Amino acid sequence: MNHQPPVSHPRPVIALLTDFGLGDGDVGVMKGVIATITPDVHIIDITHEVAPQNIPSGAWILAASYRYFPENTVFVCVVDPGVGSSRNAIAVHAGDRFFVGPDNGLFSYVLAQQTIHRTIVLSNPAYHLPQVSSTFHGRDIFAPVGAHLARGVALAELGTAIDPAKLQRIDIEPPSRQGTDIYAYIIHVDRFGNLITNIPLSLVPELSSPSINRGSQSAEQQPHFVFPTLGATVDRYSRFFSDSADDGQPFIYADSSGYVGIAVRNGNAATNLDAGPGTPVTFVASNI
Amino acid sequence: MNHQPPVSHPRPVIALLTDFGLGDGDVGVMKGVIATITPDVHIIDITHEVAPQNIPSGAWILAASYRYFPENTVFVCVVDPGVGSSRNAIAVHAGDRFFVGPDNGLFSYVLAQQTIHRTIVLSNPAYHLPQVSSTFHGRDIFAPVGAHLARGVALAELGTAIDPAKLQRIDIEPPSRQGTDIYAYIIHVDRFGNLITNIPLSLVPELSSPSINRGSQSAEQQPHFVFPTLGATVDRYSRFFSDSADDGQPFIYADSSGYVGIAVRNGNAATNLDAGPGTPVTFVASNI
Amino acid sequence: MNHQPPVSHPRPVIALLTDFGLGDGDVGVMKGVIATITPDVHIIDITHEVAPQNIPSGAWILAASYRYFPENTVFVCVVDPGVGSSRNAIAVHAGDRFFVGPDNGLFSYVLAQQTIHRTIVLSNPAYHLPQVSSTFHGRDIFAPVGAHLARGVALAELGTAIDPAKLQRIDIEPPSRQGTDIYAYIIHVDRFGNLITNIPLSLVPELSSPSINRGSQSAEQQPHFVFPTLGATVDRYSRFFSDSADDGQPFIYADSSGYVGIAVRNGNAATNLDAGPGTPVTFVASNI
Repeated sequence: MNHQPPVSHPRPVIALLTDFGLGDGDVGVMKGVIATITPDVHIIDITHEVAPQNIPSGAWILAASYRYFPENTVFVCVVDPGVGSSRNAIAVHAGDRFFVGPDNGLFSYVLAQQTIHRTIVLSNPAYHLPQVSSTFHGRDIFAPVGAHLARGVALAELGTAIDPAKLQRIDIEPPSRQGTDIYAYIIHVDRFGNLITNIPLSLVPELSSPSINRGSQSAEQQPHFVFPTLGATVDRYSRFFSDSADDGQPFIYADSSGYVGIAVRNGNAATNLDAGPGTPVTFVASNI
Repeated sequence: MNHQPPVSHPRPVIALLTDFGLGDGDVGVMKGVIATITPDVHIIDITHEVAPQNIPSGAWILAASYRYFPENTVFVCVVDPGVGSSRNAIAVHAGDRFFVGPDNGLFSYVLAQQTIHRTIVLSNPAYHLPQVSSTFHGRDIFAPVGAHLARGVALAELGTAIDPAKLQRIDIEPPSRQGTDIYAYIIHVDRFGNLITNIPLSLVPELSSPSINRGSQSAEQQPHFVFPTLGATVDRYSRFFSDSADDGQPFIYADSSGYVGIAVRNGNAATNLDAGPGTPVTFVASNI
Repeated sequence: MNHQPPVSHPRPVIALLTDFGLGDGDVGVMKGVIATITPDVHIIDITHEVAPQNIPSGAWILAASYRYFPENTVFVCVVDPGVGSSRNAIAVHAGDRFFVGPDNGLFSYVLAQQTIHRTIVLSNPAYHLPQVSSTFHGRDIFAPVGAHLARGVALAELGTAIDPAKLQRIDIEPPSRQGTDIYAYIIHVDRFGNLITNIPLSLVPELSSPSINRGSQSAEQQPHFVFPTLGATVDRYSRFFSDSADDGQPFIYADSSGYVGIAVRNGNAATNLDAGPGTPVTFVASNI
């Protein structure tokens, strides 16, 4: 088993992702707990503004982020509507990194994308705070466990192993093909209202072609998107935002997350198209 | 006097709490000042979203947070409606930690809960920035003083001693008992609208009992809360949020701050009950 | 050329300023990239809430902040409406610090205020991420370049030199004098609605005079502000906020940025006067 202790990195990194917001001091308290246990840690916030209790949104932001962090980074992620219930608290060594949080689907992309070396249910109270509340496991369990991992405690010390096949996962189906059509859906809406689909950029080579449509060709001539439930079609492409027409019309672009996105320059594609997470969208590769 | 220099910690920690928000760069400037003076510091934000100039709210968030930080942490706290006026700037060594900020009641809980070793009025300009503005002491006085403390400057160097009995304090009365009734009030409303009372969890043992009421018993049979000014009664208990009914009715829970709270699942208890900071509430322990 | 490598500082500092907000994880990703390249870095957020794509606002916040950071701090600044277009990506060694970002005017104040030692167009892909997207140069170019600078890579390694006279600059004209009148304008509105003018405090010595008007003198007797397009006059001064009358009337004060400001106690001067960035204002020094 390829289990490298995090101490191989000169300064351990803990990355935090929660839906706690920044107003109440809860995130600060988690950092205080971490710094008490692992003084030389570098704590990095991914975000604390995940939509409250929105596990799919938290899972997606983590998926778009974790590859950019150093090896052995410990991700402490808390979007946890079931806190205090019987849901498990877990730590996972997946790929070159560690993930700590509730077992509720928050790590679904990571589990699907990385080799899972070991999964542990956090049943060893020696690595929790002495008093564990029923409503703030971020402070009482996940922060201290993450800090102990970051200072080099072995994953196996933290509790009992569990079969990763038994972990909770949310639906993150890849798009399906039928002939030249790709059936997909909207996976995320970012703060600008851009719609991110579950279609990897590699499936839409038009986006890296120099001859992409900037409005001069008709939809029949080249691949386009159809929103079947909305009666809308999007057939324009743009390489970057300032390259598109400022006319309120949506266009297809390569989102920096690695997925195909749909945006409106200086506008809001989600509002414009009345689309959101889960909205089905079909990529019609009619001329391939 | 149990005065340990902060340098005993491998990397000094400064924790920040302000009402500056994160939009204007003021917090960044404070951190720039701190990093210039104490390069190896670990700066941790508690929050910068205290309600503007709301000293009781800032005091409560600090009270719920400071125990989770390492020994010798220097707390630089700036909720300071009187900046530029004759109010004192102070530093306090209380318990195992240091507190720097305006003398306006922001440290009331800390002063009530911890042994006060030494209190100093920050009258020594050698530890301030060379130019001190009238409106931004966070940058010009509190950040540099905190940074000097964190790098090991002795508290007594920072100015002249003052009798801690003379410090400003806000009203943080504990609840009072009359017979089996406990007269209390709402001390804080968190971002979810949960009402936090000034009743320590230890006074309501029902919250740790396995037979707490989840809606099946009447109010006469067990302890309950009455809001005398609102004509409302709350008699249901819940151990954690997902354990309560999702019916818009308020319930009593053990807040992670160590105090009794009142919440509505997927709702807002403050709005629901029209209650807020200062609202009186009586705990009627009728069957004790 | 006075080119000191950043490694002379015991721990390199990178300061971030963007309009990305904190909701989507983009800032966290930039920090992950930086920590991967330069593990011992101290990352400090100036702000990530610059008004979206508002270059003048970002430039002003940077101008009010950068002097408070340590020597050799690397500022990575991304307010970048032209991302993906042909606008240059640049790094500048100005004064004792380094500035990395798009060439769109964001560094106008720094360029006007500091000695420019060297300016480089970031044309060397060896210091970018292997894959550069068209929409997120903060992650793919600016963060890695800033991290390499912070770990001691020489500026000249990052690309080709460019004449700093060719850099984009926004209009940051100083106020102009005609007789005893100073023609100025509003340069920034802070989160409280305070109006910051482009008049340095040194031009209004009344603000440091003990005999400033607190409402008892008429406008003819002493210097005052006139908003020619709004028909409004402001003739009261206040040394600090709690010193002014709480009557909804605007007053002149010394903003901590080093410029003259106009505020309303417990109110919003921008709303009150219907003024904002660019609004002209004349300082009438009638009795000098």
